[in-house]
Amino acid sequence: MSDRHRLLIETEDKKGLIHQITGAILKHNLNIEQNNEFVEKQYNRFFMRTDLSGAPVQSLFDDLSALFSADHSVKLIPKRKKRVVIMATKERHCLGDLLLRCKYNELDIDIQAIVSNYDDLRVLAESFGVTYRYISHQNLTREAHEAELLKTLAQYDCDYVVLAKYMRILTPDFVEKYNNKIINIHHSFLPAFIGASPYKQAYDRGVKIIGATAHFVNNNLDEGPIIAQGVLNVNHTYSAEDMALFGKDVEKQTLARALRLVCDDRVFIYKNKTIIFE
Amino acid sequence: MSDRHRLLIETEDKKGLIHQITGAILKHNLNIEQNNEFVEKQYNRFFMRTDLSGAPVQSLFDDLSALFSADHSVKLIPKRKKRVVIMATKERHCLGDLLLRCKYNELDIDIQAIVSNYDDLRVLAESFGVTYRYISHQNLTREAHEAELLKTLAQYDCDYVVLAKYMRILTPDFVEKYNNKIINIHHSFLPAFIGASPYKQAYDRGVKIIGATAHFVNNNLDEGPIIAQGVLNVNHTYSAEDMALFGKDVEKQTLARALRLVCDDRVFIYKNKTIIFE
Amino acid sequence: MSDRHRLLIETEDKKGLIHQITGAILKHNLNIEQNNEFVEKQYNRFFMRTDLSGAPVQSLFDDLSALFSADHSVKLIPKRKKRVVIMATKERHCLGDLLLRCKYNELDIDIQAIVSNYDDLRVLAESFGVTYRYISHQNLTREAHEAELLKTLAQYDCDYVVLAKYMRILTPDFVEKYNNKIINIHHSFLPAFIGASPYKQAYDRGVKIIGATAHFVNNNLDEGPIIAQGVLNVNHTYSAEDMALFGKDVEKQTLARALRLVCDDRVFIYKNKTIIFE
Amino acid sequence: MSDRHRLLIETEDKKGLIHQITGAILKHNLNIEQNNEFVEKQYNRFFMRTDLSGAPVQSLFDDLSALFSADHSVKLIPKRKKRVVIMATKERHCLGDLLLRCKYNELDIDIQAIVSNYDDLRVLAESFGVTYRYISHQNLTREAHEAELLKTLAQYDCDYVVLAKYMRILTPDFVEKYNNKIINIHHSFLPAFIGASPYKQAYDRGVKIIGATAHFVNNNLDEGPIIAQGVLNVNHTYSAEDMALFGKDVEKQTLARALRLVCDDRVFIYKNKTIIFE
Repeated sequence: MSDRHRLLIETEDKKGLIHQITGAILKHNLNIEQNNEFVEKQYNRFFMRTDLSGAPVQSLFDDLSALFSADHSVKLIPKRKKRVVIMATKERHCLGDLLLRCKYNELDIDIQAIVSNYDDLRVLAESFGVTYRYISHQNLTREAHEAELLKTLAQYDCDYVVLAKYMRILTPDFVEKYNNKIINIHHSFLPAFIGASPYKQAYDRGVKIIGATAHFVNNNLDEGPIIAQGVLNVNHTYSAEDMALFGKDVEKQTLARALRLVCDDRVFIYKNKTIIFE
Repeated sequence: MSDRHRLLIETEDKKGLIHQITGAILKHNLNIEQNNEFVEKQYNRFFMRTDLSGAPVQSLFDDLSALFSADHSVKLIPKRKKRVVIMATKERHCLGDLLLRCKYNELDIDIQAIVSNYDDLRVLAESFGVTYRYISHQNLTREAHEAELLKTLAQYDCDYVVLAKYMRILTPDFVEKYNNKIINIHHSFLPAFIGASPYKQAYDRGVKIIGATAHFVNNNLDEGPIIAQGVLNVNHTYSAEDMALFGKDVEKQTLARALRLVCDDRVFIYKNKTIIFE
Repeated sequence: MSDRHRLLIETEDKKGLIHQITGAILKHNLNIEQNNEFVEKQYNRFFMRTDLSGAPVQSLFDDLSALFSADHSVKLIPKRKKRVVIMATKERHCLGDLLLRCKYNELDIDIQAIVSNYDDLRVLAESFGVTYRYISHQNLTREAHEAELLKTLAQYDCDYVVLAKYMRILTPDFVEKYNNKIINIHHSFLPAFIGASPYKQAYDRGVKIIGATAHFVNNNLDEGPIIAQGVLNVNHTYSAEDMALFGKDVEKQTLARALRLVCDDRVFIYKNKTIIFE
Repeated sequence: MSDRHRLLIETEDKKGLIHQITGAILKHNLNIEQNNEFVEKQYNRFFMRTDLSGAPVQSLFDDLSALFSADHSVKLIPKRKKRVVIMATKERHCLGDLLLRCKYNELDIDIQAIVSNYDDLRVLAESFGVTYRYISHQNLTREAHEAELLKTLAQYDCDYVVLAKYMRILTPDFVEKYNNKIINIHHSFLPAFIGASPYKQAYDRGVKIIGATAHFVNNNLDEGPIIAQGVLNVNHTYSAEDMALFGKDVEKQTLARALRLVCDDRVFIYKNKTIIFE
């Protein structure tokens, strides 16, 4: 195995847990580079993220698993760039921002492909040397279209699917196939302005702050676990269009921040919320 | 009349308006110290706030009114501290903050009295030398209690009523008597988490930013025109109680900021939104 | 002439000024779309920015000039995209961000060319269809290199020169030729950390907030009029390299914001400071 | 001993350290409620803050100390309110804010006394029932005045001395006696605008953001380890006086935040910087 790994543990909390875990790590002659723990008091739940150096073996995994109650999760993963497929429709600001960041190593991910239901963004994608897969939804049922999408996604062994302004609602079947692996950027400060045209809603309500929310997608629209949120001050001189224009900046920053956190294995999901070791 | 006045105009926009208004001001030998205008394009509505020096006479008012279409508002008011009555219940952070700011001239308002349905805050109020009026709601119908409140408020010729964590809902009758004169601080980033226990709602939803909203009160709970909003980053380590504790800071700052704007005549209300000359 | 113009006035303040200016505008049958004024009290200086519709003629300009004291500035300019030349060295984040924004109309400017003392950014520039001019400084004196730059710039009738991480210091001669037309992004919260390696300085000092500053360039390094500043919270877990990485986001946003303001004629320069009608 | 303690460790990092420390804790039958660690890579330094429940005995302390290299620090302190003396001069906003917060348990500290070189703030202090010690500096040498201050401070067994706008410079002798125990609020975004009249400096420079900095005091004026910083957007309409007025809000919030962190034992000092477990 590689000699840089990350250990991710979620289990019931109990006395002596850190001592036991670090004991197993030491026994296998591994070094802890960095360590974060958190205990969620309401449910007595323990979360740990540890960067290890040295060569882990399967027996570490076994030793660790033996420590925990039935309902636990232990992952020991090599440190490497995460593989991501980006889905988009026609809007370019989030996609362009991600392409730029990846190209120049500001965001340490590996974009496998861009999948879109329109062909509009092909030139942008290809100018960055990224594969563009155009899968039109026209003349297709939702199910047939998603079947095409899934077939395409299956060609890439991706860690995450990023919805960078993908404007179609995904079915529960689709979401379930990529459970806790789909990240969306919603153009409002959730849970305010759920649903369509949030900037128009914000304008009509006369709010003084607008925002964006990056979240995992589950089967309730705009109600998945929140990863990151960003805000922007506005005032009476902003039209709904101005809000949409300036909001794009917040959207792309918030999505990039969420993706950086997720792809650095800093985000745990628990009870429809996130625990994030920043 | 005093020689420092403020002119507040709202009317239909038309060509030449600023020239006509400034002409009327000049004709009366007044000087414009500072000037703000805004044209709301959707409804073609003109707003103006002007600081004047010199002694205005009634004929200026008449000349100005003659310039405008039927549906207009012109106010010519002497520059002076606004008179405010604060209503509170048991929470102290907003009230204490306002008392401190006023005492030391950080907020240029004149607190006439504090009215509360509990006696808990009397010591705080009186330590700042401010009159405390305890009007219990116990054993009273809502209407009877409000009648007592109104009788008390009527003793003070107040420009604004500030709800500094006053925890009872006001009836439409009450609100109408102080139309566009009641300012409330709501402990959430409206329109997210309308209603009760917003911090608990925010905690349960797992948001990463919480906030507070200062707004005028109208007859739809938490739906009046927004004056100011403030936000605070939170994370998974915050309990609902932590959010409530840290949120207090945002609440008191947001209320103070809103009150400063309103009492400096910087806030116009139009179509359930605010236009604010900052 | 075009029928959309912008009027920019700077002059000594005096009684009746707005009335006189709006009178001249009316006399020429022009309509005021939007208007901002500001009086700088310390020096009694009046600033005005007005959007006009209708066809202005030279006599408006003459009428206005006749109103003002000797030391004034009146500009009547057609509303059009500003022409900009971007200078860069090797860093890509600001340049890439500006290219993306312009390509997709988030930033309403016309990039004439990119001029660099290295050839590294050519592929990026040309993938957006923008002319790239490589002018190496190697084997040239500073004066000889700047002569080359000036010759190149002269081929483009540009309104502004944007230093998007151009890492060479410009001579007073160069700066004077583009007086108040050169915009720089400095990677610190000026005036903290003037000079080289500001992120290293920030790291060494242990600050909790870092920032970036967009400013006009004059002959004192990092001391020109500030247009916009942005900040970012950091903590003890950030290395100097992390600060530099995350700081890039603030740099590019701050530069884009400054450029939007300047190219929308919202920025006046007076006494080494800016007056900005936002 | 009490059954709620906090363990604070600073030592050289080495393999197995967390396992050894948690082993010692377990051996004494104590429970870890919460835990934070950080390794400073540049100097290979390990920091740990742990909340313990159970009754610690001296032998835990001995066992822990035996684990570490010579240059280490281990503190095992009962969880209790920190005792603080506040020093002030004439300005009230920070002092008033701290008094309000403590009175109503928003800030969990115990204010022993307020010491001032003027008598102006006595009424404020006493309205909150806090002892006020007036020690004029008039007709005294700096040394004689500080001798008086030290004599007064010595009467209170205080954990921290808070300079809430105390406007006199302290001598190295004074500072050394309360080494790493004096917290100051500086009214600028350090290291910008070191020294006197920072708001005037900020106004003259035309910055678009102002700030405040809470820091430990050492012998280089304004150069001690930074605990917290806060910022505020300003623009050309702000006079130096406006900046000072609005800046007060940032000052008091930043000081309160710093004090909350320090008094919750979340702040380690190392190499003139702070490591803060938030």
